[in-house]
Amino acid sequence: MLFCIFAKKSMAQTALAELGEFKLIERLTNSFSCKNESTILGVGDDCAIVSASPDKDFVITTDLLVEGIHFDLMYCPLKHLGYKAVMVNLSDVYAMNAKPKQITVSIAVSAKFSVEALEQLYEGIALACENHSVDLIGGDTTSSVTGMTISITAIGEVAKNKAVKRSTAKSTDLICVSGDLGGAYLGLQILEREKLVFTKTGTKSPKLDGYDYILEKQLKPEARKDIIERLAKYNIHPTAMIDISDGLSSELMHICKQSNTGCKVYTDKIPVNEQTAKVANEFSIDPITCALNGGEDYELLFTVDINDFHKISMVSDVCIIGNIAPQAEGYMLITPQGSKIELTAQGWNGIK
Amino acid sequence: MLFCIFAKKSMAQTALAELGEFKLIERLTNSFSCKNESTILGVGDDCAIVSASPDKDFVITTDLLVEGIHFDLMYCPLKHLGYKAVMVNLSDVYAMNAKPKQITVSIAVSAKFSVEALEQLYEGIALACENHSVDLIGGDTTSSVTGMTISITAIGEVAKNKAVKRSTAKSTDLICVSGDLGGAYLGLQILEREKLVFTKTGTKSPKLDGYDYILEKQLKPEARKDIIERLAKYNIHPTAMIDISDGLSSELMHICKQSNTGCKVYTDKIPVNEQTAKVANEFSIDPITCALNGGEDYELLFTVDINDFHKISMVSDVCIIGNIAPQAEGYMLITPQGSKIELTAQGWNGIK
Repeated sequence: MLFCIFAKKSMAQTALAELGEFKLIERLTNSFSCKNESTILGVGDDCAIVSASPDKDFVITTDLLVEGIHFDLMYCPLKHLGYKAVMVNLSDVYAMNAKPKQITVSIAVSAKFSVEALEQLYEGIALACENHSVDLIGGDTTSSVTGMTISITAIGEVAKNKAVKRSTAKSTDLICVSGDLGGAYLGLQILEREKLVFTKTGTKSPKLDGYDYILEKQLKPEARKDIIERLAKYNIHPTAMIDISDGLSSELMHICKQSNTGCKVYTDKIPVNEQTAKVANEFSIDPITCALNGGEDYELLFTVDINDFHKISMVSDVCIIGNIAPQAEGYMLITPQGSKIELTAQGWNGIK
Repeated sequence: MLFCIFAKKSMAQTALAELGEFKLIERLTNSFSCKNESTILGVGDDCAIVSASPDKDFVITTDLLVEGIHFDLMYCPLKHLGYKAVMVNLSDVYAMNAKPKQITVSIAVSAKFSVEALEQLYEGIALACENHSVDLIGGDTTSSVTGMTISITAIGEVAKNKAVKRSTAKSTDLICVSGDLGGAYLGLQILEREKLVFTKTGTKSPKLDGYDYILEKQLKPEARKDIIERLAKYNIHPTAMIDISDGLSSELMHICKQSNTGCKVYTDKIPVNEQTAKVANEFSIDPITCALNGGEDYELLFTVDINDFHKISMVSDVCIIGNIAPQAEGYMLITPQGSKIELTAQGWNGIK
């Protein structure tokens, strides 16, 4: 009954980096199939969907944040971290067109953390719960060997069959994004630059003035509840949706691949904040590259029916950046000069 | 809007060890209150309860397992680990009298793990899902700085208002446990002993013969789905229930404190397996101490109405070990000689 213990096994050793995050998940989970009637959608979208009642579905998402991989406590205050850890999950719930209702929060912490430090983390979690009308309903608290790990699961509600998946874009749909992109990535570059200065000089105070917008995008992102509410107000039902955690390029390709479509995105339509553009120049990077491949913006990327063009044009803080196309046309980025560049997805987060 | 960054704050520094796990959770979560109508029960039981429909509730639980704290890969095969990580959560679902239906699995792993190693972990997860008719519906896969962390969330279903909490024992109820106790703790002692020998001598093979039962209790515990099914078959509805992850003593005190009762437990009624007793003697420990304070048995501790005495006596693999009592009578352990010893709870797992 028990497998061998203490035994050294000789087996093939494929490094995780060889596969990358998405292929690893596919390899680990492709033999699983969902058998319970209540499981409507399993692995492969922002959230899973579980049938709750004849008129209601639940969506479920979970994220794991690891110190040293996803956050650096040198410049990420614990209260912000708590807030952001919740937002990352709520963003996935909104990306299903659902309303978040409950979260569980588990933390593993080493002895270097004090009770007071964890109270700051939970202050941020409490603020996030308050701002989004979410209840903290459970979790686990344990020791770790080093550093902090935070695992959050969020549960949301949506009217029956109204959850919006990634796989349902049609080849004539418009592609829309909320807010602006690339800011969180550049905020991180500023923090990393100032960390280096701070570490080297010890006492020198960091230069963070004038970077408020992008620092906030990085340290205290806000899940776009407002966009979901506005879409409902204008009676717009997105045909497909995903939240932008790994960069526009990667997310758009998730929608296209899962919907079996291509896309055309116009670079001059991609929304970039003025401060983001200025700082990108400071770092000699193209702001559009930051928008395409920078992570952690937590904006919404969605598609709407072409007949909703007038309605979507009225929704504030949403830009139309292109359109879905037949699969044969590929994933195309179109410059103002009319050049076509093929989109490639660089995974942002996760296994490197 | 942003809190101070890079600033060293002077604040009180209370060590986590000063509080212990349960008081820490209380301190971190006591300012949270549940506001959504669908949240029936929040923090403080084996699972939270969320209303799904007029005739159905969902229960939700989550656990975080950290390498070096909860498991040692030197003697815990990855397939067993995957199986056990799921069982730990399903045990909490059964302890609510619910049927598990879905799980999410998140892992953080360092570069030392190969794809093949993770496939073994997921083989164990798949086997657990199959044995308990549970669907894997999501998760997160990420890097860690060192070692492996596994976070699982399980969702279960139960008929409306039929979830069994910890807080509803009555002062005349019988106290019951499933299976036998203390085995998982002694299995761990054997593994730790052999690890020491193995580390010191290098090549010497570990002596594990004759310890099958307790090793399996430690390495591959089984969540007691069968007990929940048997109770339903005999039409017994437990008045309170909890799963035994931290030792009988600690779990019983959770029920008593949350139900505002006392208890009387008869030491000679506490079920201990023959091998457990033998190995306890080998280590010169009282087997009852292992049952009271040893962790990870994943058996069910529950109370039933005194009028169900005949029915519960017919349920196989369940022992009546005592009775709930008025709060004023305290938490009492009674020896065969009639001596009364006050029960104390030693938390097992978690923050040390």
